[in-house]
Amino acid sequence: MKHNYLNNTPPEAAREVFLNAARENVFQYTNESVPAPQALGRTLSRAVYSALSSPHYNASAMDGIAVAAEVTFGAGERTPVALTPAQYTPVDTGDPLPEGADAVVMVEDVIDDEAGNVTLRAAVAPWQNVRQVGEDICMGDMIAPTGTVVTPALIGAFLAGGVAQVEVMKRPLFGIIPTGDEIVPPTAAPKKGEIIEFNSAVFSAMLAGWGAETKVYGIVKDKKELLAAALDTALAECDAVLLLAGSSAGRDDYTAEVVASRGQTLIHGVGIKPGKPAVLGTAAGKPVAGLPGYPVSAIVVMEEFIKPLVDLYYRRTPAPAETVEAVLGKRLVSSLKYKEYVRVSLGAVGGAYACAPLAGGAGVITSLTKADGILEIPQNSEGLSAGTRVQVRLLKSEDEIARSLIVTGSHDPILDELADLAQREGCGFRLKSSHVGSMGAVTAVKSGQAHMGAIHLLDGATGTYNEHILKTYFPEGGAVLKKGVRRVQGFMVPKGNPKHIETLADLTRVRFVNRQRGAGTRVLLDHLLQKNGIAPAQLNGYANEKFTHTAVAATVAAGNADAGLGIYSAAKMYGLDFIPLCDEEYDFLVAAAYAGHPYVQAFFRLLHSEAFKARIKEMGGYKLPED
Amino acid sequence: MKHNYLNNTPPEAAREVFLNAARENVFQYTNESVPAPQALGRTLSRAVYSALSSPHYNASAMDGIAVAAEVTFGAGERTPVALTPAQYTPVDTGDPLPEGADAVVMVEDVIDDEAGNVTLRAAVAPWQNVRQVGEDICMGDMIAPTGTVVTPALIGAFLAGGVAQVEVMKRPLFGIIPTGDEIVPPTAAPKKGEIIEFNSAVFSAMLAGWGAETKVYGIVKDKKELLAAALDTALAECDAVLLLAGSSAGRDDYTAEVVASRGQTLIHGVGIKPGKPAVLGTAAGKPVAGLPGYPVSAIVVMEEFIKPLVDLYYRRTPAPAETVEAVLGKRLVSSLKYKEYVRVSLGAVGGAYACAPLAGGAGVITSLTKADGILEIPQNSEGLSAGTRVQVRLLKSEDEIARSLIVTGSHDPILDELADLAQREGCGFRLKSSHVGSMGAVTAVKSGQAHMGAIHLLDGATGTYNEHILKTYFPEGGAVLKKGVRRVQGFMVPKGNPKHIETLADLTRVRFVNRQRGAGTRVLLDHLLQKNGIAPAQLNGYANEKFTHTAVAATVAAGNADAGLGIYSAAKMYGLDFIPLCDEEYDFLVAAAYAGHPYVQAFFRLLHSEAFKARIKEMGGYKLPED
Repeated sequence: MKHNYLNNTPPEAAREVFLNAARENVFQYTNESVPAPQALGRTLSRAVYSALSSPHYNASAMDGIAVAAEVTFGAGERTPVALTPAQYTPVDTGDPLPEGADAVVMVEDVIDDEAGNVTLRAAVAPWQNVRQVGEDICMGDMIAPTGTVVTPALIGAFLAGGVAQVEVMKRPLFGIIPTGDEIVPPTAAPKKGEIIEFNSAVFSAMLAGWGAETKVYGIVKDKKELLAAALDTALAECDAVLLLAGSSAGRDDYTAEVVASRGQTLIHGVGIKPGKPAVLGTAAGKPVAGLPGYPVSAIVVMEEFIKPLVDLYYRRTPAPAETVEAVLGKRLVSSLKYKEYVRVSLGAVGGAYACAPLAGGAGVITSLTKADGILEIPQNSEGLSAGTRVQVRLLKSEDEIARSLIVTGSHDPILDELADLAQREGCGFRLKSSHVGSMGAVTAVKSGQAHMGAIHLLDGATGTYNEHILKTYFPEGGAVLKKGVRRVQGFMVPKGNPKHIETLADLTRVRFVNRQRGAGTRVLLDHLLQKNGIAPAQLNGYANEKFTHTAVAATVAAGNADAGLGIYSAAKMYGLDFIPLCDEEYDFLVAAAYAGHPYVQAFFRLLHSEAFKARIKEMGGYKLPED
Repeated sequence: MKHNYLNNTPPEAAREVFLNAARENVFQYTNESVPAPQALGRTLSRAVYSALSSPHYNASAMDGIAVAAEVTFGAGERTPVALTPAQYTPVDTGDPLPEGADAVVMVEDVIDDEAGNVTLRAAVAPWQNVRQVGEDICMGDMIAPTGTVVTPALIGAFLAGGVAQVEVMKRPLFGIIPTGDEIVPPTAAPKKGEIIEFNSAVFSAMLAGWGAETKVYGIVKDKKELLAAALDTALAECDAVLLLAGSSAGRDDYTAEVVASRGQTLIHGVGIKPGKPAVLGTAAGKPVAGLPGYPVSAIVVMEEFIKPLVDLYYRRTPAPAETVEAVLGKRLVSSLKYKEYVRVSLGAVGGAYACAPLAGGAGVITSLTKADGILEIPQNSEGLSAGTRVQVRLLKSEDEIARSLIVTGSHDPILDELADLAQREGCGFRLKSSHVGSMGAVTAVKSGQAHMGAIHLLDGATGTYNEHILKTYFPEGGAVLKKGVRRVQGFMVPKGNPKHIETLADLTRVRFVNRQRGAGTRVLLDHLLQKNGIAPAQLNGYANEKFTHTAVAATVAAGNADAGLGIYSAAKMYGLDFIPLCDEEYDFLVAAAYAGHPYVQAFFRLLHSEAFKARIKEMGGYKLPED
């Protein structure tokens, strides 16, 4: 079995080698002429000079009468000056001064009679109330230098200065070639083994944001000749080329080889995680990069190497990334070999930012869409201990992060529905939920990391839900319990219940899929197992843990397990059969300090809204306590 | 003469009235379906749910061999397990697991022989190195709620989740109707009295930035019926309408009347400066605004009333404006009647921001393009004294402001050329020059408000330039003098010199145009007048002050004066005749603390570059000291 080892070049060194090669090959903007009104956001490639003074004639700055200033000299309260119609001209703001006039008297200061004569009780100086030629812009003045990014006001200045067309930096064109035998274009019904190709859309959007254009080529199969031919075509048509996937060292990964055959593979393998198997090189005098197939890896490589390449093209100094200081919530272990990019969630419950690493590997793109920021751990670091003050690079604005209601704890799809309702109703906050299980909710509320927690914890002794948590964990106060929904828990099994699951004991003879430690559903399972005298080890799949009800349902639906425990709405969503076990109470533990907070109040208003009732009715398996 | 007085509604009250009317008329987004890859930057109008799990099959997470985990149980360093080809399948990352397999052994851990048998020295657990169905996204999970602005990564999540089309908020369409008898479309050759209509392009660009589309109608003459007809058309086609100019109370200003005839004029006149003559109302159930003609006034009205209207349409909470604290450099007088918006320049020479109000009235759009920020002075304030700590709303990024080389003082077009060269050469800073005259440069360098000053000050006693400034104003050091250029000063007169200006005495019989107090050229004039025994009062136009050489040239070229004093390059630009008077030395006074600063060093490198020499050769009238 062929296996190539990759290099592990430090990212800074890899970037320098790649950018130097691009610089040597004069990877730089050319000029493009565009109409001024269409230049918004573009970067000037040449200084713009005014072709016209503005105003280009002496214009009245007021509504009033235009006069030769000298005829008003001497006018005063006790020495009014009378002017005949021949001595003045009525003008509006913007009107040209007639021949011989060099001043304007404001309409408020003019007393006119029926014959058209006017009386003035104050004199005007030459050029008073007149916008002289060039007051705003003088012909020949530089309106903006090279490198200026065009704003709306600048468009106005160009047109006012008689400049209809401006020279801007042509956007670089990046060719994008997706590769891979298993890759198919986006579809709602991919076959087994077919992977939807979405990276080209992601990178096109990223490049658009950086000011580049893209041409996406058809998917190329894993054949060296085909890849080489596609690269040749793209090199002929584009300013730079990105080859997607095929940058690792698997047996079908030809990128590095093909780039070398057309130019030079400068770097193969970078000391970053995710993103290690990147290829950086040049071919036909143009920059070429091979990006890893996992989306998060590839996005990191885009940020680290392709954004600086676009900045180089524009010869611009990028603004430093916006960062905030945060306190790391849990220990992070890191490899000495890699600079690591950890996607994190930021919470600002008490004022200081708390930083929580998000789960999910390099293939989990939703770990990026949910992230508030990126925590970078340098190469040669073994990691960071909990409580460390860290700098987090922001992916969302501080304002958006500040306007968050943080609800952590047990997973239920109703949290997403409430998040959506909060947006629809324009509540002004985003509801941010994270799935750490009911016990995680207790910890988070206690340590001030969440405004509220979602819990469904059975008190085995009394058979009641959640009330005991206040006594056990908040004996001195600090939290209040607010009722949420009643929901039904049960077994999710394939349609028709082929394995005839009826009772807990039936689970011992099938493949089970479990929830993670700390989840209320896991607590319920363990309670029921104990009550029925079944040891966890008797369940095949007890260790196969999922973080959400839908993940359990998806696992059963995929045939990876024969049964799971979860809520009705998830089973319904996947067309599974559902064997009800018990009703439970899914409630909210609210940090006392935030019980009166407007976001919390709005949350419970939404929970009892007609819109929410309609949604849970459609989802099925829920009741509000008052129903 | 007809004269309507406007109201003076406080801006907050005016905004509330206007937005409430829009709210009552349900000014709100509708849905539009767009392909996911084209949704970048759009706002979701409905929550997006995954249509597909990702991965949608059990996929190998590694290159290696797929096995049933149980066949590896017991494998260890001393107890290797051998597998026949029938017991494993080679897989690459992303490949589906074959029937019966539930784990993958990494290629690094596989020892293979020529017959195709493999040996393992470690066991794998079920689902190890496998991306199980739904690991990233589970079918039915909410990928993003309503109101989310689509990012590149989110596009990836949509496509990975099998969602090809998403529902976004349709952009509102704003009709823009420019009005006015004197208004003409952008042209390089407007006639006298014709004003170039550029506001529609400025507002279209502003609205594009806020997420709205625009339809710009043809220019409408100042006739009530025509304006009413244009408004009717726009109301039928658009979601909201902006009428440009015609919102003041001049005799041709029908906006308020026409809006009232089609609906309701809610506000006519707002207590803001600039921007007072705004009209706000509704017609045919749609928001309508009349914007003042002066561009800066209109931009203020757009920011204060139209941006909140677009935010309302999207039901979004705008992020608070970014502000910085700065120290006001000079006293600002403000009217009690208006909330004032002062365009300011920000300098960060010593660390703290210094804030300098920019010259220019509401008609001067370049006062906005040059501004770094806006200082708001509340209604009911008489103004602010010099040294006050103020909050400035940023128009440019803090990073851009920080990367500035501040050169203040005497005006010369070469400063703009050097600014352009600095950008072209990618020096990493912007050269920011302001024209406060040579004496202003001395003050600015002394008080730490500029890195360097541009001066040309004649020492009457010795006939030398600039050297005496160090002795007089910096006796204890604090500044160094660096040579700049030699340039020729002289009289600028119309082509053919019709008034036969030859000597200083000739100025007493023509109309003169002067430079502002503190300008080196003004100092030169005063010196020459005194030497020749001519009193300033003998010069007709001595009080007509301009701030730049080009403004003097433009004034002479326009026939507003018969002669001015200035540099050759400005006269040449305007095709004027030039009567040389003397050579002078235009030098740079560098704050000692910044003499070694990389930006300052780069500046003098540019000053002696071949590119700069080529430019001054083309401009004419300059010499470098070494030439």
